[in-house]
Amino acid sequence: MKRLHEKMEQEGRVLSEHVLKVDSFLNHQIDPQLMKEIGEEFGRLFKEAGITKIVTLESSGIAPSVMTGLVLGVPVVFARKRQSLTMTDDLLTAEVYSFTKQTSNRIAVSKSFLSEDDTVLIIDDFLANGQAALGLMDIVKQAGSTIAGIGIVIEKSFQDGRALLEKEGMRVESLARIESLQDGQIQFKAEVLQ
Amino acid sequence: MKRLHEKMEQEGRVLSEHVLKVDSFLNHQIDPQLMKEIGEEFGRLFKEAGITKIVTLESSGIAPSVMTGLVLGVPVVFARKRQSLTMTDDLLTAEVYSFTKQTSNRIAVSKSFLSEDDTVLIIDDFLANGQAALGLMDIVKQAGSTIAGIGIVIEKSFQDGRALLEKEGMRVESLARIESLQDGQIQFKAEVLQ
Repeated sequence: MKRLHEKMEQEGRVLSEHVLKVDSFLNHQIDPQLMKEIGEEFGRLFKEAGITKIVTLESSGIAPSVMTGLVLGVPVVFARKRQSLTMTDDLLTAEVYSFTKQTSNRIAVSKSFLSEDDTVLIIDDFLANGQAALGLMDIVKQAGSTIAGIGIVIEKSFQDGRALLEKEGMRVESLARIESLQDGQIQFKAEVLQ
Repeated sequence: MKRLHEKMEQEGRVLSEHVLKVDSFLNHQIDPQLMKEIGEEFGRLFKEAGITKIVTLESSGIAPSVMTGLVLGVPVVFARKRQSLTMTDDLLTAEVYSFTKQTSNRIAVSKSFLSEDDTVLIIDDFLANGQAALGLMDIVKQAGSTIAGIGIVIEKSFQDGRALLEKEGMRVESLARIESLQDGQIQFKAEVLQ
């Protein structure tokens, strides 16, 4: 997705060979117009997939998911990273290990918002080791919903997340795929530059 | 805002005289179309205010804020409730006490995203005791930015948040104002039903 690539090149900060910081438009400050275009792109990619619900993870997954939900005309459910006191319903939960923070987080979705009749698009901001996506898949499967695929804004293709998800039979659509972050530069995978 | 009132009446669950649960369209599951209409309404209310940036709090403030940012053509910055390891920048922080959870949270915004040149609209999902809004105001003031006003999706008018904010000279625009939650019913303030 050209606009996203440009934004990453202009504003992304390569902090190490593994870390790209995109806090100016996705993870802390959000560019609403870019999110709209991301929503349109996910909408285009999944418009024939019969999606009834989008599932994402707070907080950075919310903006791209809501814009996609608007395009597809479906609700968004965001998994919470910690249990809120007002979440009195039965919960579907999964453990997500973060390699960055070296901690495990319990993520939770209320059972009320997913059913066997749902066809779910999972959306997340980043795909690295795939642990968050696997946790979301786990929750969606517990609900008995069908998973139509996974939409990722930025994929770090040099990590093994995509391979893990594809091994599970998942369709993975990433709007930007990073081949490497060496020498402080973002190198995109060639195929998505066309 | 009529559509919001209807949604609250249809799907809101009154858990006590103080707690209205709107997890089906705002706080856990999100209705993107309703968020768009909320964004249009905040956009209409603040279009003459010279807004350059929206500041909100993760996670439930993000969806209405991004839709408002799209209408006003400005970026959204969401304050984080806990420090992320990739937030290496200097931070502006404030303490927010939650009466519901009886705990204090540190909220943080990177200094990079607010400046003396900004005119800020603060948006939050709920206004109850006003502690979150006061924390966000504190952060925006530390940055030297101007605060144009506060946009609230649902105000619990029987709590003292609005009075506290107005005492600080704030313009407060709430799209739904609840007078009481007694007897398991939502009673709206009369003025906003017109």
